[in-house]
Amino acid sequence: MRTQSRTHQCVRMSVTDQYLANNAEYAAQFDGPLPLPPSKHVAVVACMDARLDVYRALGLQEGEAHVIRNAGGVVTDDEIRSLAISQRLLGTTEIILIHHTDCGMLTFTDDDFKADIQKEIGQKPAWAAESFSDPEDDVRQSITRIENSPFVTKTSSLRGFVFDVATGKLNEVSAA
Amino acid sequence: MRTQSRTHQCVRMSVTDQYLANNAEYAAQFDGPLPLPPSKHVAVVACMDARLDVYRALGLQEGEAHVIRNAGGVVTDDEIRSLAISQRLLGTTEIILIHHTDCGMLTFTDDDFKADIQKEIGQKPAWAAESFSDPEDDVRQSITRIENSPFVTKTSSLRGFVFDVATGKLNEVSAA
Repeated sequence: MRTQSRTHQCVRMSVTDQYLANNAEYAAQFDGPLPLPPSKHVAVVACMDARLDVYRALGLQEGEAHVIRNAGGVVTDDEIRSLAISQRLLGTTEIILIHHTDCGMLTFTDDDFKADIQKEIGQKPAWAAESFSDPEDDVRQSITRIENSPFVTKTSSLRGFVFDVATGKLNEVSAA
Repeated sequence: MRTQSRTHQCVRMSVTDQYLANNAEYAAQFDGPLPLPPSKHVAVVACMDARLDVYRALGLQEGEAHVIRNAGGVVTDDEIRSLAISQRLLGTTEIILIHHTDCGMLTFTDDDFKADIQKEIGQKPAWAAESFSDPEDDVRQSITRIENSPFVTKTSSLRGFVFDVATGKLNEVSAA
């Protein structure tokens, strides 16, 4: 970490450096290690949104549940990979899907996003950006993708929710 | 949520139901909403491991940083997708990669994992399982994948760490 000079001219710390200082405090009070397999046999798939602290929003204690996150909380091959590993090697069976209100994925279309990248660098991504226009509909889409995957075979419970960033509440998504 | 019958015969609650009860307590004290773009302009890519509470381990406050997680904390197309959206649409520039000690990804090989799936269901996944034998080497691999991606173009800082599940400490991975 960078240090202040004796003449009190501050060298700007990156946020990463600030987080490392926070981690030193965290480690000083850390009580570990816990076992590797999630003790509650749960895997959560949630949006990467900064306002969604999954541990606090669900009351997760350390060691209880796998937490998988990406832009939108969508289910692509990489979430299927993570869920297959979670279930087959580490014994999870319940899956909780979390999208949320005021999501960035509602603010663009795949076509515009990819055209913007192509305009900047000359190359269009071969992957889908996975934007969506309705969080509830996309939770149902994620449920369908998991149900249709042949690789996620140990599921005892699969439920989807939309987290309300104004109230902190998880609202369950019903079948269409 | 299921309720107890009057004869006190308990219907077993799923863990999901218990977490929903926790969420009701969380929402009762919730103070929102916060703005959509991460206020610290940071994106974290971390393993899904249950023992790694990213918000607590880094001292993240709600609203500060995107948190992307998967099995291993590896970088595949879906993490490139999430980082591209994070940077291009929501203004993040710093990236923090976190693998950890005692990781499940150290306990198998891709070939064995995929053969086991094929034995159960008759179909072999077309995707890589992304197992690895050394967390530090795989952090370097993740850094290289991001550096080589044409779609992640706004990075001001890219650093990788191994979280020690015994001590809670983040140890930085140096260049090879």
